[in-house]
Amino acid sequence: MNVQGLAFGNWTSFSEIIYFFKFFGEFLMHTSQSQQTKSSATSSSMQSCIDNCIRCAQVCLQTAMNHCLEMGGKHVEPEHFRLMMNCAEICQLSANFMLSSSRFHNRTCEVCAEICDACAMDCGRIGNMEECASTCRECADSCKQMASMVTH
Amino acid sequence: MNVQGLAFGNWTSFSEIIYFFKFFGEFLMHTSQSQQTKSSATSSSMQSCIDNCIRCAQVCLQTAMNHCLEMGGKHVEPEHFRLMMNCAEICQLSANFMLSSSRFHNRTCEVCAEICDACAMDCGRIGNMEECASTCRECADSCKQMASMVTH
Amino acid sequence: MNVQGLAFGNWTSFSEIIYFFKFFGEFLMHTSQSQQTKSSATSSSMQSCIDNCIRCAQVCLQTAMNHCLEMGGKHVEPEHFRLMMNCAEICQLSANFMLSSSRFHNRTCEVCAEICDACAMDCGRIGNMEECASTCRECADSCKQMASMVTH
Amino acid sequence: MNVQGLAFGNWTSFSEIIYFFKFFGEFLMHTSQSQQTKSSATSSSMQSCIDNCIRCAQVCLQTAMNHCLEMGGKHVEPEHFRLMMNCAEICQLSANFMLSSSRFHNRTCEVCAEICDACAMDCGRIGNMEECASTCRECADSCKQMASMVTH
Repeated sequence: MNVQGLAFGNWTSFSEIIYFFKFFGEFLMHTSQSQQTKSSATSSSMQSCIDNCIRCAQVCLQTAMNHCLEMGGKHVEPEHFRLMMNCAEICQLSANFMLSSSRFHNRTCEVCAEICDACAMDCGRIGNMEECASTCRECADSCKQMASMVTH
Repeated sequence: MNVQGLAFGNWTSFSEIIYFFKFFGEFLMHTSQSQQTKSSATSSSMQSCIDNCIRCAQVCLQTAMNHCLEMGGKHVEPEHFRLMMNCAEICQLSANFMLSSSRFHNRTCEVCAEICDACAMDCGRIGNMEECASTCRECADSCKQMASMVTH
Repeated sequence: MNVQGLAFGNWTSFSEIIYFFKFFGEFLMHTSQSQQTKSSATSSSMQSCIDNCIRCAQVCLQTAMNHCLEMGGKHVEPEHFRLMMNCAEICQLSANFMLSSSRFHNRTCEVCAEICDACAMDCGRIGNMEECASTCRECADSCKQMASMVTH
Repeated sequence: MNVQGLAFGNWTSFSEIIYFFKFFGEFLMHTSQSQQTKSSATSSSMQSCIDNCIRCAQVCLQTAMNHCLEMGGKHVEPEHFRLMMNCAEICQLSANFMLSSSRFHNRTCEVCAEICDACAMDCGRIGNMEECASTCRECADSCKQMASMVTH
């Protein structure tokens, strides 16, 4: 039995092999990182909140300035468009407050969570905005967790 | 008795005359504007809050990046310098939220007031930061008023 | 002849008196300031560029997020709306660079002038945007002047 | 010869295995993506420039507001600290211009590349700033490439 047969014999396409290496590699990376940082639970969840905020800021800005403007109609209703831009701006500020170790980051994360929730809900109302809605919801969850932590 | 005697006789310097015209003029402007906009109290106080936020953002950024960096010592202590930069950023965001008629401006103004108060207090602790401290206090007052208004 | 006669006798309305005090006061302030800062022509023109940039950032953001979104139609064409938001953002950054004494402010002012010119022209094409167009033109002129100065 | 022997027999540590999977996986992903997007070279290099700009904005802000403020001394020299903050701000703006499909993104990327190069050089002068310096250099290279592209 050769190596190819053992490892890849039952797989049906090249892309499945790619994903095997990609995700198995990431799983090992993750396991290894978790061991190194077991003691700094706060900064690990903060890093994840920073990542969520930065991603949400990007998705909201990019979606508003491309998808929404190009679709027109209800996508450029004042209420909806303002929420998208507000959401992008508060997410960026919340990320910046965490990156600069501000002792007020839990206060900005609290407001950020509210606006992300409102934006996710409005994306649902408008329709055809699934990616933006789910990104906002993830960011809101992450920010709520950060807002409820006691700062030191 | 000539006009000069009547109006300026007891004044000791040219700059006092300047300030008389400047402030009396502004007082009359203010009185006149108040009458015109009696019915739109919200937008008049919002415009004043926008002005205070923009001024505070400018003063904090300019003071941090010039006075504080050039003085060094306790002026660049992490806690103090972060507060100055955080204050500049939240003031700018609060102004932007009001300028874009965001329905969340009262929430951002609430957090802005807290950070401005903290920054004013820290400027007092550091010393030699009177202009920045008073600008922050004015902005905090203006933001508290805005935060407590019912949005429509 | 009484004082009222001397000062206000020939004036026809209360608002003219207001403007007399307002503008005469500002004229004196300006004259007095010019004398104090004769030697710092750069910082005086820089302060005026900062003011123009901050005003242009405000007008573009406020106009886009209110007038343009509420009018709809060609006011929310992607090309036009993007220019308005880009203009607001580069003006804010250029003001921040000058406020923080960045040695790169002439480079950002150069790009700012280009975008302000493009935005002013596009406001003319769309129509009913005179205030925004003239604010952009003023800011562009001010930035061109700043961009051409030799930094030290 | 068993599979373990074949694949991992000569490797000395667990972390080498992790990196094998991680990088081989990414190599395959990359190869596969290149084939899919052969026709959209511009948007692929733009996405990479956006990522570099956002990463550089984060690293500069986080390093300035933590490492530099905490180290003090030459790390808070006005010239150095201003460059760090300017770099963070222009990188964020350049990313935002690309995310919003601005036709001026090549102009802002050009200025961004200059400031990133200056920041990388200054990090070298200050010392103990290797991560920031290399992030700035990567971003500068990416922005130069973007600045030289013809926009359509």
